[in-house]
Amino acid sequence: MDARDARWLGASLALAERGVGRTSPNPSVGCVIVANGRVVGRGWTQPGGRPHAEAVALAAAGDAARGATAYVTLEPCAHISTRGPACSDLLIAAGVARVVTSGIDPDPRTAGAGVARLRAAGIVVDVAAPALAAAAERVNPGFFTRHRHGRAHITLKLAVSLDGCIALADGTSRWITGAAARRHAHLERARCDLIIVGGGTLTADDPALDVRLDGLEDRAPQRAVLSATLEAIPAEARIGDARLLRDLSDLDADPRILAVLVEGGAGVATSLLTADRVDRLLIYRAPIIIGGRRGIGDLCLTDLGSAHGRWRLAAALTLGFDRVEEYDRVR
Amino acid sequence: MDARDARWLGASLALAERGVGRTSPNPSVGCVIVANGRVVGRGWTQPGGRPHAEAVALAAAGDAARGATAYVTLEPCAHISTRGPACSDLLIAAGVARVVTSGIDPDPRTAGAGVARLRAAGIVVDVAAPALAAAAERVNPGFFTRHRHGRAHITLKLAVSLDGCIALADGTSRWITGAAARRHAHLERARCDLIIVGGGTLTADDPALDVRLDGLEDRAPQRAVLSATLEAIPAEARIGDARLLRDLSDLDADPRILAVLVEGGAGVATSLLTADRVDRLLIYRAPIIIGGRRGIGDLCLTDLGSAHGRWRLAAALTLGFDRVEEYDRVR
Repeated sequence: MDARDARWLGASLALAERGVGRTSPNPSVGCVIVANGRVVGRGWTQPGGRPHAEAVALAAAGDAARGATAYVTLEPCAHISTRGPACSDLLIAAGVARVVTSGIDPDPRTAGAGVARLRAAGIVVDVAAPALAAAAERVNPGFFTRHRHGRAHITLKLAVSLDGCIALADGTSRWITGAAARRHAHLERARCDLIIVGGGTLTADDPALDVRLDGLEDRAPQRAVLSATLEAIPAEARIGDARLLRDLSDLDADPRILAVLVEGGAGVATSLLTADRVDRLLIYRAPIIIGGRRGIGDLCLTDLGSAHGRWRLAAALTLGFDRVEEYDRVR
Repeated sequence: MDARDARWLGASLALAERGVGRTSPNPSVGCVIVANGRVVGRGWTQPGGRPHAEAVALAAAGDAARGATAYVTLEPCAHISTRGPACSDLLIAAGVARVVTSGIDPDPRTAGAGVARLRAAGIVVDVAAPALAAAAERVNPGFFTRHRHGRAHITLKLAVSLDGCIALADGTSRWITGAAARRHAHLERARCDLIIVGGGTLTADDPALDVRLDGLEDRAPQRAVLSATLEAIPAEARIGDARLLRDLSDLDADPRILAVLVEGGAGVATSLLTADRVDRLLIYRAPIIIGGRRGIGDLCLTDLGSAHGRWRLAAALTLGFDRVEEYDRVR
């Protein structure tokens, strides 16, 4: 693999982003097919999970795929489904000379078998270095967490002031952040499978939890209320189709739920952090001082050293006057 | 003024930085003298405030100053002191053809008189645009605040976690940030005239409030304890030479105190913010979640809209795993 390969893999990663939020329980994968330095086909996982990225790209490339290199953000699958053939078989049949992939599929039905099958057919297969694999995994964190740990991947979203507050002392929280940050947060909703709020937030804020972005209005994910005391939530406050959860166990048991976005409030955030169930922090921070209600309650830490080394900054972006930072839990 | 002028003014600003913290009640000024595109002299305000930057730069340039351009980060002074001649007279005597300055001196003894005297002598004087003036003012915020508002300039320093905490629930605060951030904070001490802590921080942490940086050990500024209840501070907890303050009024009355750094704790921070006496926030933020003791208490805001538009991000820097952000109060 050289720098040119890394660039093409980056292009396929950008394509993979297009399917995020519409492919669960499948991952969203991107693929570009390159012949003589030119793209002859590209594809990404289609809504519902099929066709796969490789099938789309190969169909676009046609005969031009013969002798070409396919860049794929996940190991081509080795399992035949009623919904389509195995991508490794498709790549072999198309006469591709080389496959470059970001990493190995954690799905036990493939898990290296795709690469083995390609190599057995005489195709050169390069698997990217860990840094590129990590970038690819960040596109489908729920998929990797589900297969590696048997549970849902949880992002905790916070919209905070510089002093870590999420509301005035009286509970007012509209608005901490500006319009650009709020739009970004709506896009995050469209990328997940389920949104969770606590009972208190549901009752106090009556949030719609939908995706209010032009062209994405139909992308609102499932919603759920997480509350130790569900019966305390007034019936009229409940979002029509929301799931009611006393804890996360039935979400973890549901293989269709990969990526979960937790939107508050402080009670839910505190209990998930205490249970070490937050995999990613999504922090929108506004340049204001509130001195009001904090976003995270008492975690009862007794050792400051233990707080360090747990979170790694993965991305940061300026949005108007605000800044969004993403931190991944180091595991 | 063109882009080349702005670049030379930037170079003189970098020289001005060298004197910061050692010139009060004078500002720290930088000067470069340029002839035919080459620097023939440079200087910055010397410890104690004299000689001035222009005097140093002119002495270095000698005859080469004749017909040259002098770039100065503040209007050359027009007042003759027992400690030295007026810089505008020195520039005229040296035969400088042109003076470019960042802005007008707020000191009433000059306040435009320097520019007028230079122009009367036939020297071309250009005063920089507001953006460059603002950059120059940020080098000496205490000097400008003192002359414009008759009071000290206050920086509130906070070392916080992502959730805005400054300590565990039990008060442990060593360490939130890493070594690089703490060294940066020590450098900030060397840049101010006085450090303030609250009585609680003094009693609990017994902070040395010195400058523990190689070569800068002698740069510890004056120290003060700000507490509404001074008698509650045990005598043995008091830092030897620290001033004891019940409020800020005697600091504001002392013309030698320009820049003040407040290092905590939450009580002092909250009261200064409530009184709108914080001119600059210096926030060191570590990528950790603490869920402990907050850095800022209840500000009793009743209108979230009023929290917006008060703070402007002026600078940000990554220091190891931490990030430091500087916000100026928009006035």
